[in-house]
Amino acid sequence: MSHDQILTRDAILDAAEQVLRRYGPEKTSVVDIAKALNVSHGTLYRHFASKAALREAVTERWLDASISAPLEAIVHRTDGSAADRLRSWMEALIQAKRTYLAQDAEMFAMYTAVTVESVAVIHAHVDHLVRQMAQIVEGGMRSGEFKAGRPEDVARALFSATARFHHPAHAQEWLSGTMDADFEAVWRLLLSGLAA
Amino acid sequence: MSHDQILTRDAILDAAEQVLRRYGPEKTSVVDIAKALNVSHGTLYRHFASKAALREAVTERWLDASISAPLEAIVHRTDGSAADRLRSWMEALIQAKRTYLAQDAEMFAMYTAVTVESVAVIHAHVDHLVRQMAQIVEGGMRSGEFKAGRPEDVARALFSATARFHHPAHAQEWLSGTMDADFEAVWRLLLSGLAA
Repeated sequence: MSHDQILTRDAILDAAEQVLRRYGPEKTSVVDIAKALNVSHGTLYRHFASKAALREAVTERWLDASISAPLEAIVHRTDGSAADRLRSWMEALIQAKRTYLAQDAEMFAMYTAVTVESVAVIHAHVDHLVRQMAQIVEGGMRSGEFKAGRPEDVARALFSATARFHHPAHAQEWLSGTMDADFEAVWRLLLSGLAA
Repeated sequence: MSHDQILTRDAILDAAEQVLRRYGPEKTSVVDIAKALNVSHGTLYRHFASKAALREAVTERWLDASISAPLEAIVHRTDGSAADRLRSWMEALIQAKRTYLAQDAEMFAMYTAVTVESVAVIHAHVDHLVRQMAQIVEGGMRSGEFKAGRPEDVARALFSATARFHHPAHAQEWLSGTMDADFEAVWRLLLSGLAA
């Protein structure tokens, strides 16, 4: 990028993501990212106050694009029961996490680190996912398929109760052969708790 | 300990635990533990093949004494409902984990590391806890308080669904102010799934 071009947020994050993927979060410096953008690090600091802020913004954008956005489509399906939609949504979340762990290891490692270090980014991401689930749960409550309740509280409980299957702190366990059966057993219990 | 005394498993583990606590798992060597026992490291290797084996055995003993054993008493209570017993058992587990995290940080860190590195030790520990819960669940099924089912499968699902509240990978989250409310919401959903 030349000095004359406008330094957009997306252009900065594109460069930051590329550099972070290439060198890893530890070895990347703000100067490396500034160089890739062909700007001074002073210019870059006017947009992002630290390497941590850049890393968080890159992770946030990645979470939105690769996790939240694809799941949104499932929320708006009109076929099947609310239980079917909820199950599809949950399976898509779990599958996405496993796929990125295997196929996008650099971003997954960055996401895992941000989970520990930047509570605000992760809270916003989880809140977004919980609101998606709450919409499905609300539909099920409205149709009488699920017990009455506060959709957002129920959605948050469902998200918590399935943490083992989608929280990156458990990534190592996902490789074990029993995870699908374990999820099935948890799902059955939760659905039995939801059903009217 | 003098050369003349019999080198019991418990004596080795007492010394190993003391040395591991003092120097930390990284800095401790088998030679340090042998020195504390006043035996040669060759003698110690006849009992434990590696530092990892010693560390696992120390952790296993600690888990039994500080987690599994105190919970056993709750399984055999006869007062109250199965739901009450299950809830007491679960709260005691969660409370024990939080207490050790705060008050026995060295052992908790060792336990967290063993969770990742020694699947066999942790599987045995989890199986033990799941069998305890299964006994409570079975009681509830027998009395008609809970839906019929396979107690061990249901217990395993309950354990999985509450991982966020007792698995050491989530220890950092336990400090957040919302954990008790989050547990309450998960518990309500699970109990609603269990109830006949």
